[in-house]
Amino acid sequence: MSDESVMSDQNSMPDLKVTGRTKIKRGANRASFDRKAAYALIDHSVVCHLAHLVEGHVVVTPTCHWREGDHLYWHGHRLARNVVSPGQGRGNTEVSINICALDGLVLARSAFHHSVNYRSLTLFGIPEEITNDEQKALHLERFVDKLYPGRWAQLRPMTRQELAATGVSRIPINEASLKVRSGMPVDDEADLDWPAWAGVVPRESIWGKALPDSHVTKEQERPVLGEGLF
Amino acid sequence: MSDESVMSDQNSMPDLKVTGRTKIKRGANRASFDRKAAYALIDHSVVCHLAHLVEGHVVVTPTCHWREGDHLYWHGHRLARNVVSPGQGRGNTEVSINICALDGLVLARSAFHHSVNYRSLTLFGIPEEITNDEQKALHLERFVDKLYPGRWAQLRPMTRQELAATGVSRIPINEASLKVRSGMPVDDEADLDWPAWAGVVPRESIWGKALPDSHVTKEQERPVLGEGLF
Repeated sequence: MSDESVMSDQNSMPDLKVTGRTKIKRGANRASFDRKAAYALIDHSVVCHLAHLVEGHVVVTPTCHWREGDHLYWHGHRLARNVVSPGQGRGNTEVSINICALDGLVLARSAFHHSVNYRSLTLFGIPEEITNDEQKALHLERFVDKLYPGRWAQLRPMTRQELAATGVSRIPINEASLKVRSGMPVDDEADLDWPAWAGVVPRESIWGKALPDSHVTKEQERPVLGEGLF
Repeated sequence: MSDESVMSDQNSMPDLKVTGRTKIKRGANRASFDRKAAYALIDHSVVCHLAHLVEGHVVVTPTCHWREGDHLYWHGHRLARNVVSPGQGRGNTEVSINICALDGLVLARSAFHHSVNYRSLTLFGIPEEITNDEQKALHLERFVDKLYPGRWAQLRPMTRQELAATGVSRIPINEASLKVRSGMPVDDEADLDWPAWAGVVPRESIWGKALPDSHVTKEQERPVLGEGLF
């Protein structure tokens, strides 16, 4: 494991990298390479979608993710196809990962100008697997504490067997592009008096009341989730 | 365009197809090939993630989808890389599509048994592009009316130019697998008296109050969204 995951200086963060894959071809007005906005999306979201080749076929599955410095991490069973690195001979040379927030429905006066408000980040990279168990534990702590700040310290510690059974992978956050739409519909001028309602229906995720299992005692405090998580 | 998209008989729906790609290798206890449950997930969700090969590289992006009978549809700019069918010479031979609902966070007494409640459907197929503009309009009507029942009839009709600029693609819903986790954490027996709160934090999506744009008149009625949409 290299030691590149140092936190970027928030005041001088380099843009994400524009390549043939990350250059946005449709809706270029919605494109952004703002690393800070990308990090906010990564840090507040729980689930990403990871696509890769498995025996020559494209497969996309959801997984949870977290960020440390300039790397995006995910985990799974140590033999899971999406966490095994190329060096392990499983042939996953490249992944594409998307994180998307659906922020609203955009209703125009014509079907053509209907849209959605969203933030979508697509990343590309060659995964690196974390193989050292002590390092794995440190990364998993960051993952747990992203979702539930302070919780790691309250848990029954991970066993050697559990660490050995867990795979952790990461890619650098570099070749990536963010696409964002926000705001009201943009109707054709000639349609503005067409008699249909137009505007935005906002959408958000909410967390319900925490439901304890049957072994929780009255004294045990309900968890506090990470701020802004969706 | 073939004419296979007849509605399945809901009382005798064939299971989804188990293949090398859809057989679930990890967490087989969470696997389902229940077509009815898969259709409910498709019909209530707005956004899917579509992965395919572009010039030899895996790319995953979000898009909106809808269902007609036993086909999953999506749309985009007619030249967008994810809507152009193989016959158009753009080389997209296969796609994998995932639809995922995050239903809750599952907190156990050990990090290892933490999990999430979710429903995740992964599909595979070779896209077919709808090339007839009249057919395209019929499909887009189904899409709009999935999100906002009855709205298509209220809109300024699509022009020939708009239809020509819009691409519609579909895959049969056949080679697919559903994975579902629900309910409480499953802790190790020995951890049940560990002094940490354990249980589930439910998650759901909500639609906020519809915000009209500046041209809406008082008489125009706010939209009603499709039931159960998330």
